Amino acid sequence: MNASGVITLLTDFGEQEPFVGVMKGVILGRNPAARLVDLTHRIEPQCVAAGAFWLGETYRYFPRGTVHLAVIDPGVGTHRAALVIAAGGHLFVGPDNGLFERVLARAADVRSFHIDLARAGLGHVSRTFHGRDVFAPVAAELSRGIAPETLAVPGAVTPTRLVPEPRWIGDDLVGEVIVVDHFGNLVTNLARRGWPAGARVSVWFGEERLELCGTFAELPADRPGAIVGSFGYIELCLKDASAKQLLGAQRGSSVRVSFERVNP
Amino acid sequence: MNASGVITLLTDFGEQEPFVGVMKGVILGRNPAARLVDLTHRIEPQCVAAGAFWLGETYRYFPRGTVHLAVIDPGVGTHRAALVIAAGGHLFVGPDNGLFERVLARAADVRSFHIDLARAGLGHVSRTFHGRDVFAPVAAELSRGIAPETLAVPGAVTPTRLVPEPRWIGDDLVGEVIVVDHFGNLVTNLARRGWPAGARVSVWFGEERLELCGTFAELPADRPGAIVGSFGYIELCLKDASAKQLLGAQRGSSVRVSFERVNP
Amino acid sequence: MNASGVITLLTDFGEQEPFVGVMKGVILGRNPAARLVDLTHRIEPQCVAAGAFWLGETYRYFPRGTVHLAVIDPGVGTHRAALVIAAGGHLFVGPDNGLFERVLARAADVRSFHIDLARAGLGHVSRTFHGRDVFAPVAAELSRGIAPETLAVPGAVTPTRLVPEPRWIGDDLVGEVIVVDHFGNLVTNLARRGWPAGARVSVWFGEERLELCGTFAELPADRPGAIVGSFGYIELCLKDASAKQLLGAQRGSSVRVSFERVNP
Repeated sequence: MNASGVITLLTDFGEQEPFVGVMKGVILGRNPAARLVDLTHRIEPQCVAAGAFWLGETYRYFPRGTVHLAVIDPGVGTHRAALVIAAGGHLFVGPDNGLFERVLARAADVRSFHIDLARAGLGHVSRTFHGRDVFAPVAAELSRGIAPETLAVPGAVTPTRLVPEPRWIGDDLVGEVIVVDHFGNLVTNLARRGWPAGARVSVWFGEERLELCGTFAELPADRPGAIVGSFGYIELCLKDASAKQLLGAQRGSSVRVSFERVNP
Repeated sequence: MNASGVITLLTDFGEQEPFVGVMKGVILGRNPAARLVDLTHRIEPQCVAAGAFWLGETYRYFPRGTVHLAVIDPGVGTHRAALVIAAGGHLFVGPDNGLFERVLARAADVRSFHIDLARAGLGHVSRTFHGRDVFAPVAAELSRGIAPETLAVPGAVTPTRLVPEPRWIGDDLVGEVIVVDHFGNLVTNLARRGWPAGARVSVWFGEERLELCGTFAELPADRPGAIVGSFGYIELCLKDASAKQLLGAQRGSSVRVSFERVNP
Repeated sequence: MNASGVITLLTDFGEQEPFVGVMKGVILGRNPAARLVDLTHRIEPQCVAAGAFWLGETYRYFPRGTVHLAVIDPGVGTHRAALVIAAGGHLFVGPDNGLFERVLARAADVRSFHIDLARAGLGHVSRTFHGRDVFAPVAAELSRGIAPETLAVPGAVTPTRLVPEPRWIGDDLVGEVIVVDHFGNLVTNLARRGWPAGARVSVWFGEERLELCGTFAELPADRPGAIVGSFGYIELCLKDASAKQLLGAQRGSSVRVSFERVNP
């Protein structure tokens, strides 16, 4: 795989302290030509599932050969492995705690490795900030074309299922809210996939039926509606306002899609 | 116009979800040498006027040939045009909804275009995220020197007036608060321009008279004052504290400047 | 000193308005090859001490020859000097108000300068935004290898002591909370340095004794503990939660370390 020189960063560090900046300093010390892109540093603290969701949805918008550095790491300093994963033409670096489960579920050509501190030439490593001391240096080396085998040894990823999949209950598809976004839109895990052809689709939040619209502008004026959002999942939205506030929904709230056969 | 290779980004997307990061991935896939600068992603959701104000004030601090990518886009997926504007030696990309009205009011040599998806080679376009699917790819191409004409066809910008101009009422100049900044300073639309020469200037918020000071350090210790801020507009400030809290002002609050003739 | 081409930025400007973006535009106009890294723009407004603490802890993670641009500047437009400091193989640019006291306390080979507007070729300078009009242009020039002497004249740094040092009271070391971080961890000024060898160490917050643990995972399940954090200071933490909320601590709260001699 040819390195693109791009490194994305996703953490739960927030932007208040310079933790992310320090990781970037470490990276630029090893690869001055690296181009750094923040995905988000506002994952809710320790919420590995939210990080896993976004990593799975976003990596494919970057050039092949991009290194995706992800650090949500409550187990830092314990025996959890430090991973390098090559998958779908991209590279991923971070702790072995489920962060990459959605990438692994959808990417082809997966090879996984455990970082070997000696091989990677990482001497002094803190027990509390592997983002700086392990993952950033390894991401930097990968971004300049060093092969994973040079820094790590083949090793498995611990299987996890942090992000739930929707399930069929009778003729209904039942999922849940995965993300409440900045606009108050409720992004679900309900993808437009495997739906009965030609059926009339309704989206339900509890007893409330929401119309499935094509654009934000087509949403009803004064009550929530649904759209298929830009990553392919059903979102509950309120026109020019926050659906979250109106519906009182949160991460984990149940959302249902029903299909009514229409006579041809 | 020679491209500078710099692209600025201004949106109302916030930093919680990786929407801005995904746009940057799309850009770097098309122009690996692009240099990306965030203006702000914290424009209040759907508040096109605030975006228009800041775009008008900031573009001139960037090198000529910079591409300014702006996405506040409640009308995404509708028939509103997708614009490329060449103005004042800079390029602007975003929806036709007033975002560029302040740029157009002050820049010279304006040419405007409507993005043509076929010409731009943009096949699959979502109905909910043109920042990623239309504006980012077009900005990337422009940033590597592709001419607007290659991606877009000449087309007009819909006239708007989202950001109000101050007006004379008798001998007073009356404006309003446009931005409440991070420090709690109240930035108005009252520029130091066209004021009667040699007059004694007073700034009024309701019945309260505020002294016009030269620096933050010269502000009174315990009551609000006014300064001409760094973009040339009168700001109401409280020394080392938030004027917003003390004055109870918000966006749209009226501010008045009076001029008292001084005998020479 | 060879310039690395990297410029870090630390301010109290927040990310709501495009003030930081404008500084970056000014920099890229002078050094198109500069690589820009945000340390943080969320220092509490006017809190020079917090900025000083983080600058002192973070600069050494960047390549030698990096320019660190720091703007927390309540005295902008007054007679306070505008500094360039060469220290420890790095360059620092910002106001003379204590921002660099921690850098100066630990770096070797210190030389300090006062920016000279005429020498630096800076004509029109506002009285309210030297970040844009003075410090950004000077940082840009330094980042492309221009010597400090070209832009500034030798000049002293005003001595300050904004960040307190811990002190011995009897056999106890008494310090305080310096930073409440994004996770609610309470970072103190108590470094693991000069401690009696072989003693049993206890950390005290008021009457509460906290166990000193090696990793976040080793913290007790339901009460706060202490760790030596990633920058070498004692932090009070609560496993997977916010110690701040439980302890009701804030910046300045006292923390004590006691040492109990253990018979060999």
